[in-house]
Amino acid sequence: MLRVGLLGAGRIGQVHAVNIAGHALSELVAVSDFHAPAAKSLAAQYGADVKSSEEILADPSIDAVLIATPTDTHSDLIEAAVAAGKGVLCEKPVDLSLARAKACLAATDGATKPIMIGFNRRFDPNFSALQRAAAQGEIGKAELLSVTSFDPAPPPVDYVKVSGGLFRDMMIHDFDMANFLMRDTPISISAVGSAIIDPAIGAAGDVDTAVVTMTYGDGRIAVIKNSRRAAYGYDQRVELLGSEGLLAADNMLENTVSKSTKAGVTGAKPEHFFLERYQKAYVAEWQAFIDAMLNGAPVPVSLEDGVMALAMAEAATRSASVGRTVLLSEIV
Amino acid sequence: MLRVGLLGAGRIGQVHAVNIAGHALSELVAVSDFHAPAAKSLAAQYGADVKSSEEILADPSIDAVLIATPTDTHSDLIEAAVAAGKGVLCEKPVDLSLARAKACLAATDGATKPIMIGFNRRFDPNFSALQRAAAQGEIGKAELLSVTSFDPAPPPVDYVKVSGGLFRDMMIHDFDMANFLMRDTPISISAVGSAIIDPAIGAAGDVDTAVVTMTYGDGRIAVIKNSRRAAYGYDQRVELLGSEGLLAADNMLENTVSKSTKAGVTGAKPEHFFLERYQKAYVAEWQAFIDAMLNGAPVPVSLEDGVMALAMAEAATRSASVGRTVLLSEIV
Amino acid sequence: MLRVGLLGAGRIGQVHAVNIAGHALSELVAVSDFHAPAAKSLAAQYGADVKSSEEILADPSIDAVLIATPTDTHSDLIEAAVAAGKGVLCEKPVDLSLARAKACLAATDGATKPIMIGFNRRFDPNFSALQRAAAQGEIGKAELLSVTSFDPAPPPVDYVKVSGGLFRDMMIHDFDMANFLMRDTPISISAVGSAIIDPAIGAAGDVDTAVVTMTYGDGRIAVIKNSRRAAYGYDQRVELLGSEGLLAADNMLENTVSKSTKAGVTGAKPEHFFLERYQKAYVAEWQAFIDAMLNGAPVPVSLEDGVMALAMAEAATRSASVGRTVLLSEIV
Amino acid sequence: MLRVGLLGAGRIGQVHAVNIAGHALSELVAVSDFHAPAAKSLAAQYGADVKSSEEILADPSIDAVLIATPTDTHSDLIEAAVAAGKGVLCEKPVDLSLARAKACLAATDGATKPIMIGFNRRFDPNFSALQRAAAQGEIGKAELLSVTSFDPAPPPVDYVKVSGGLFRDMMIHDFDMANFLMRDTPISISAVGSAIIDPAIGAAGDVDTAVVTMTYGDGRIAVIKNSRRAAYGYDQRVELLGSEGLLAADNMLENTVSKSTKAGVTGAKPEHFFLERYQKAYVAEWQAFIDAMLNGAPVPVSLEDGVMALAMAEAATRSASVGRTVLLSEIV
Repeated sequence: MLRVGLLGAGRIGQVHAVNIAGHALSELVAVSDFHAPAAKSLAAQYGADVKSSEEILADPSIDAVLIATPTDTHSDLIEAAVAAGKGVLCEKPVDLSLARAKACLAATDGATKPIMIGFNRRFDPNFSALQRAAAQGEIGKAELLSVTSFDPAPPPVDYVKVSGGLFRDMMIHDFDMANFLMRDTPISISAVGSAIIDPAIGAAGDVDTAVVTMTYGDGRIAVIKNSRRAAYGYDQRVELLGSEGLLAADNMLENTVSKSTKAGVTGAKPEHFFLERYQKAYVAEWQAFIDAMLNGAPVPVSLEDGVMALAMAEAATRSASVGRTVLLSEIV
Repeated sequence: MLRVGLLGAGRIGQVHAVNIAGHALSELVAVSDFHAPAAKSLAAQYGADVKSSEEILADPSIDAVLIATPTDTHSDLIEAAVAAGKGVLCEKPVDLSLARAKACLAATDGATKPIMIGFNRRFDPNFSALQRAAAQGEIGKAELLSVTSFDPAPPPVDYVKVSGGLFRDMMIHDFDMANFLMRDTPISISAVGSAIIDPAIGAAGDVDTAVVTMTYGDGRIAVIKNSRRAAYGYDQRVELLGSEGLLAADNMLENTVSKSTKAGVTGAKPEHFFLERYQKAYVAEWQAFIDAMLNGAPVPVSLEDGVMALAMAEAATRSASVGRTVLLSEIV
Repeated sequence: MLRVGLLGAGRIGQVHAVNIAGHALSELVAVSDFHAPAAKSLAAQYGADVKSSEEILADPSIDAVLIATPTDTHSDLIEAAVAAGKGVLCEKPVDLSLARAKACLAATDGATKPIMIGFNRRFDPNFSALQRAAAQGEIGKAELLSVTSFDPAPPPVDYVKVSGGLFRDMMIHDFDMANFLMRDTPISISAVGSAIIDPAIGAAGDVDTAVVTMTYGDGRIAVIKNSRRAAYGYDQRVELLGSEGLLAADNMLENTVSKSTKAGVTGAKPEHFFLERYQKAYVAEWQAFIDAMLNGAPVPVSLEDGVMALAMAEAATRSASVGRTVLLSEIV
Repeated sequence: MLRVGLLGAGRIGQVHAVNIAGHALSELVAVSDFHAPAAKSLAAQYGADVKSSEEILADPSIDAVLIATPTDTHSDLIEAAVAAGKGVLCEKPVDLSLARAKACLAATDGATKPIMIGFNRRFDPNFSALQRAAAQGEIGKAELLSVTSFDPAPPPVDYVKVSGGLFRDMMIHDFDMANFLMRDTPISISAVGSAIIDPAIGAAGDVDTAVVTMTYGDGRIAVIKNSRRAAYGYDQRVELLGSEGLLAADNMLENTVSKSTKAGVTGAKPEHFFLERYQKAYVAEWQAFIDAMLNGAPVPVSLEDGVMALAMAEAATRSASVGRTVLLSEIV
C-alpha cells in the first residue's frame, strides 16, 4: 500500500485525490494547501490529515507526494521531496524558467525513487493506442504529425499574466505529445501567434491562437495548432501520417446520440474540458506511478521529459517573438 | 450501338433518357407517352422521334424498349415487346396483380432477348459492394438482415389509392433487396402496418408505416422497416449480421461538411430522394442492360425476380390484413 | 449515509459493490453468497462483513439490500426484504415465472421503502439522452422504434437451459427499453426466433437469434432484434423515428483512433460487453437508488416495470412458439 | 450555344471534354494537341475537328478556348486567345514564372471576354458549402484555417523536375483554397519542406512533404499540410475555426459500407484521386464558365487569383529555401 501526501488541494489536486483514494494499492494520508480551508475540506472527504508541506515531507510514513501546487513552487518541492527520499508525481510544467527546471534536474540527479511529470495526455486511451500503433509500425515510417488542441474558452487575463504564456502553459502539453509520438525531439521550431480572441490577452503580452511547425533531424515534420477558444468544447485531436497510412485520434463525444431533422444531422459535442475528457487518463497516469513506485516499472514521463517540453516552449516563444525559426540547440 | 425506344416520358422515363442518350453504346431514337407534350418535350431534348408505343414496337430498327409507363400497362407491353423481338427493361413492379404478372412470365417464356426488371437499388454502389462482400464470405454465414427504407414524404392520397398499397408500391424494392442479399426467398412473412402519418392513407385502406419479418428455410431472419416519411430525407440503409461480423451500408450525404458549435456537431442530411441517391445506380443499371443486350451477359434482375418480389408483397399485404404469419407457399 | 447489504457476490454483485462502496453517501456493510469464498473475498476488498442473507435482512442497521442472487431467489428475497422494512434494488428479471412475479408484486403492495429493478440500460448516458430528447418532442411524435441488441458471444448451453430462454433472459432488457422510450406498453407482440448460431441452443429448446415486432394502441410500432453473437463486440443501438426526425444512439467504441491504409479506414470496435459499455449506467443507477432512498425521489424503474417486461417476454416466447401474434392482454 | 476549342488532349483535357460535350449549352467543336494521335482520338469521341491551336484561335466561329496544354505555354496561349477575342478557361498554374504570369496579366488587361483559371476545388460541393457557411457567419469570425492535402502517390521524378516544385505545382491549389476561404491574402508565409518520401525528389531539388504557415493582417492564421503520398488515397480536407465554432469538410469516400469484425470496424477509403474526387467540381466549374460567357456572371476565379496563388507559391519556395518567414510584399 502506497501512502501518499497531496501537496495542493485546488482543482487539479482534487482530480488526483479521487484516484489516489480510489486505487486499491494507494492511500491518501495527508493534504496540504496554503489555503487552509481547501486542504481541510479535501482531507475530510477522504479521511486524510491536514498537514503543511513541510510536515508531509518530514513524515517518514509517507512514501510519495503528488505536487499540485502553483508552478513556481514545483522545482523547490521536487528537490525537497527527493531529498526526503520520497517518490514524486509533479504536475506540469516543471517550472516557467528553463534554467530553474534544468537546475532541478541536476539537483535531483541520482534520486532513488521515481520522479514523474504529469503529462496526463500520454495516458489517454486514444492517444496511447495511437502511439502503440505507430510504434508497432502499423503505418510504416512516421512522416508528418499534426496536433490540434483547442480549449473551450480563454482563461481570465489575470491567469494569463502569470501563466508563462500560451506556449509554456498550454502548448507544453502538445510539445510533450509530439515527443511521445515522434519518439525524438525536433531540431528547429517555428512559431506564429496572435491575440485574435481577446485583445486583453495581447495587451498582456501573450497570444491566444498559435501554430508551431517543427522539423526533425531525419526530415520529419510536426505541426501544432492551439486556440484558447472552441465554442463547441475541448478539441483534442492527433493525426500521424506515415509511409503506409494515417493514424488519427478523434475527440471523445459527450454521448453517441444523433438527431436527424430537416436542419441536418446533429451529434453531441466533444467532452467539455480536461476533467471529463481526460478522466481515464488521470486514472491510468496514477496507475503508472503506482507501477513505478511499487513494481519498479520505468517512469513513463521523466523529469527530463518535463524539461525538454519546457525548452520547446521556450524556443516557440522566442520564435513567435523574433519572427524566425529557432533551433532547439540554441535553447537547450 | 443499341437503338432504344422509351415508353413513358414521365419522371422516371426522364431519368432513363439521360442515361440512354449519354451512353456511348446506346441511342435514344423514339419516345412515346399517352400525354403527347411530355413525349414531344423529352424527344426534342435528345433528338429522338415522337412515336406511339405501337409504332415503336413495330419499328424493326429499334432493338430494345425501356418501359416506364403506368404499372397497369407493364405486363401487356412486356408481352408485346417480346412478341416483337425486342429486349426489355421494365420499371418495377411488373404488375399489381400477381396472377397477371405470373401470366406475363408464362407468356414470355422462351423470349430470345433479355427481359430485365428495374430494381435500381441492386446497382447502388453501396448495396452492391455490401452484397459482394457478403457473397465473398467476409462476415461468414449471413444470419440476420435488416433493411431500413424511409421516403422523405408521403405521396398524395390519390396516388396511394392506385398504388397497390405500401407493400406492392414501396416495400417491393426492399423485398427484392432481401432476395438480392440473402440469395434465397423466405418461407414465411409476417407484417404489421399502421396509418400513423396520414389518416387519409388509412382511410384509403393503406398503411404508411410498416414492419415485415421474414424467415428462411435455414433459420435466417430478415426484417424490413418502411416509413412514408423521414423529415430528414431519404433514409436507405442495410445491415447484415453474419457469423463473423456485420456489414452495414449507410446513407449517402449531401456533402461532407460538419459544423461544430455550442449546439452540437451538425452534418449534412442524406441525399434527398431517389433521383439524387440512386443517380449512379441508374447509370449502372443501364450499363448492365447494355451488357446483357450487346455482350450476352446474364440479366441481373429477371422477370422471375420481379414476380417473386410481387408475391412477397402479396404475402405481406395479406399478413398485415389478417394478423397472422403467411407462408410464401400460400401465395406463389 | 446509506448502509447497504449485498446479496450475491458473483459477477454482477461485484459490479455493484464498487459503486456502493465508491459512493459518498453509501457504505457496503455486509455481503452474502451461498458460495462462501466469493462472499469472503468481496467483503474483504471493501471492509464489509460476511453474513448470511437472513442475517443481513435481520440487521436493523442495514437500510437497503441489493439483490444479485440467482433469479429463482429474487421474488422471495424481495418479499423478505420488504417485510424487513428495507429498500430494495433487485437485478432483472424479477422472476422467470410471470405468476410468481405478479404474486411478489401483490405481496409487496404498500411497501414503504423503494423497490427498484435493475434495468441498467435506462441509465446509460446515450439511451437516457435519447429518451429525454424524445420526451421533449425533439422529433415530434414517435412512430417507429428499432432496438438492436447483440451479445458478443452466446452463453454456455448449461446457462441457456436455466435462463428462461432468450426472451426472458436477454430481450427482457429490450422490452424494458421499449417501455422506457415509448412510454407505453404494446398491445400485440409477434416473435420469430431461430437457433442458427449454436444448434445445441436449439436442442435445449431455445433460440439464439430473434426478431420481435410490437404494435401500440395508437398505431406506433416497435421492432427488437437480438442475436447471441456479434463477432465485433457488444452491439447496443436504438433508433426512434418520429414525425419530425430520427433519434439514434450508436455504440460506444473502445477508442477514437482510426487507421487509414490501403485496406480501408479501420476504427475501434464497440466496447466489448456490458461491464465496459454500461459502467457509467451502473453508477447512475446506483445514484438513482440513493436519490430514492435518501431524498424521496421517485423510483425510476419500479417492480411493476419489472413485471411488465416479464409479461412481454412471456408473450414473445408464446408467439415464437405458436407462430401467431399474441395480445399482451392474453398474458397480463 | 457556346462553341469551344480545347487546347490539349491529355488527361485533364479529357476531363474537360466530357463536360464541354455533355453540357446542354456548349459544344466541343475542335481539339488540338502537339501529339496528333491524342487530339485525333479525343476529337473522334465527341465528333469534333482536329485543328492546330493557331487554327482554333483563328476560327471566328469558336467562342472560347479551354487551355489544358503544358504549363509553359499557358501565358502565351492566354494572351493569344484574348487577342483573338475569345473567352478563356485555363488550367492552373498560370505559369511557373511569376514575372511571366504578371506580364500576362498586364497584357490581357482590358480583355472583353472572361478569363478564368481552373482552380477546380473551389467548385467542390463540400468546400463550396463550407465557404458559403463561413461567409454567412455561421461560425462567427474566422480565425484559424487548416488545409490538409495529400496525393495518393508521388509523381515520377521526371515530372517533378519540370513541375516548378511542390509549392508551385501542388500546394498552389491550397494557396488558392486559402484565398477562397479566408477572402484575403496573407501578409507573411513561412514554409518547411522535406524529401522524406523519395530521396530522388530531394536530389532533384524539390520536397515531397511540406507545411506552410501564413498570417493575415488582422491576426488570422492559416496552415497548409502537403504530402505527395497517402497510402489510403487522396486526402482532401479543410477545417476553419471561428469565434463561434468549427467548419470541417471531410473526405468523400468510395462508398458507405462498413464491416465490423473482430479486427475492428472498417470503412471505405477516400475517393482515389482527383478525377473521382473532383468529378462534380469539374462539372460545376464548367457551369460557372458558361454562366460567365453566356450570362455575364462574374468570373469566380480570375487571372489575378491565378497570379496571386503563384506569388504565394513563390514566397513559400523562398521561405523553405532560406529558412525564414517571407513577406508576401517581398514577392508581389
